[in-house]
Amino acid sequence: MYLYGKNALTELLKSQQNAILKKVYLSPSASLSEREESLLKGLNVSVTVMPLKTIEQLVGKGAAHQGVVLETKDFQYLEYEELLEQLEPAPVASLVFLDQVQDPHNLGAIIRTAYSAGVDGVVTCQDNSASVTPAVVKVSAGSAFLLPICIVNNLRRALERAKEKGFWIYGTEKDGHPYPLVAFPPKIGLVFGNESSGMRRLVKESCDETVSIPMANPFDSLNVSVSAGILCFEILRRRLFPETREPQVLKEGEP
Amino acid sequence: MYLYGKNALTELLKSQQNAILKKVYLSPSASLSEREESLLKGLNVSVTVMPLKTIEQLVGKGAAHQGVVLETKDFQYLEYEELLEQLEPAPVASLVFLDQVQDPHNLGAIIRTAYSAGVDGVVTCQDNSASVTPAVVKVSAGSAFLLPICIVNNLRRALERAKEKGFWIYGTEKDGHPYPLVAFPPKIGLVFGNESSGMRRLVKESCDETVSIPMANPFDSLNVSVSAGILCFEILRRRLFPETREPQVLKEGEP
Repeated sequence: MYLYGKNALTELLKSQQNAILKKVYLSPSASLSEREESLLKGLNVSVTVMPLKTIEQLVGKGAAHQGVVLETKDFQYLEYEELLEQLEPAPVASLVFLDQVQDPHNLGAIIRTAYSAGVDGVVTCQDNSASVTPAVVKVSAGSAFLLPICIVNNLRRALERAKEKGFWIYGTEKDGHPYPLVAFPPKIGLVFGNESSGMRRLVKESCDETVSIPMANPFDSLNVSVSAGILCFEILRRRLFPETREPQVLKEGEP
Repeated sequence: MYLYGKNALTELLKSQQNAILKKVYLSPSASLSEREESLLKGLNVSVTVMPLKTIEQLVGKGAAHQGVVLETKDFQYLEYEELLEQLEPAPVASLVFLDQVQDPHNLGAIIRTAYSAGVDGVVTCQDNSASVTPAVVKVSAGSAFLLPICIVNNLRRALERAKEKGFWIYGTEKDGHPYPLVAFPPKIGLVFGNESSGMRRLVKESCDETVSIPMANPFDSLNVSVSAGILCFEILRRRLFPETREPQVLKEGEP
């Protein structure tokens, strides 16, 4: 996989996942700082100067590469069953399922947020969905290489399998229970739907329950990556600060 | 201001802010649904067919206009002092201050989130900052027209003025108090810094206190629009669900 741009190099070098870096290619006019050169040497990464034309062949002509291209390890999805197996002994775990999220920017942002919030994996669909491209890795600030990501053919079946393994599955939609009043169990899956149409009917029917994010102004809806951020960090908040964990139980007839 | 694209029209028509629409221009090959035509008639908005060339002159050649251009009212910033005055009698209020947030996508996403979370206004800087362009309005899903937005020359001075008016100002940074342990008062301002460099030193010094978003994995940092989403909705959560509002008081020596 080829990433590009001066910033991509700077960020990758200072991040934990700098081991994914295999080679650096520079155009004749580009240069590295002494610090970057020494870090690359430390990582045993070769730096090669190449004609601009070859650079453009690697990353496409329109790309804002600034003469810097990074060759990284290929991105590897994890088998979904393997992820479930890894999480089997964990007393506490969370997964994010994406039902046809299509915008690469959203996918990258959700991966970054999920990783920061301690989510254990992101599961996305084969069809009509963004997959992990260099652009997605860029938006994820490299965290796509740090978090298990799975692609499944049949999201409904994947949700059923997670339920068999003890996960409680929450779909997200406008008419769900307000999340502040939901007592999340230790093993949970959160399902986020497509940017325009939300979750598909059959996917929604596979959820144990649905949750909503109450808003102050009756508006459209939140961007899916913002919704994911709010819910993933709410779950983290309750785990890190258990004294504020238990919400009031929702009483019948209450909103 | 000119917005464009079929989707922009569809969303604007179903939204509360459809009154900003002044005129619709179509290319000869574009068409509207019957429902759209009747809605436009109801709003007293004229529809004019124009040569493709003229359409392109309005919105630029590269724009994905799909033959649909919307002429809207001009975007109007609110005077900052006027905003403060409006909020003076309110017992509860919140403001978002942006210290040189530069990415139009982030600005649009923050406006959308702030509006949904019931924030009373967004204040941004004159220099080195994204301003409200058609692209920002698009990402904000039109909410830029629903929420007071101010531009100030001197953010530090603006923070001082807000403090004089009874707002408690929280800067956001890695080393701040974990937000779940902060007891937010009724009138608050949240300050978010630039995407790469965070808040400027003098701006930070003008804050009453700083807060952080604790993460599960020691990583880079969150995208600024995700951070804004988490904090704005945490504040809304405490207002809407006061039974979970008061966090434990932070004891000395505790993290």
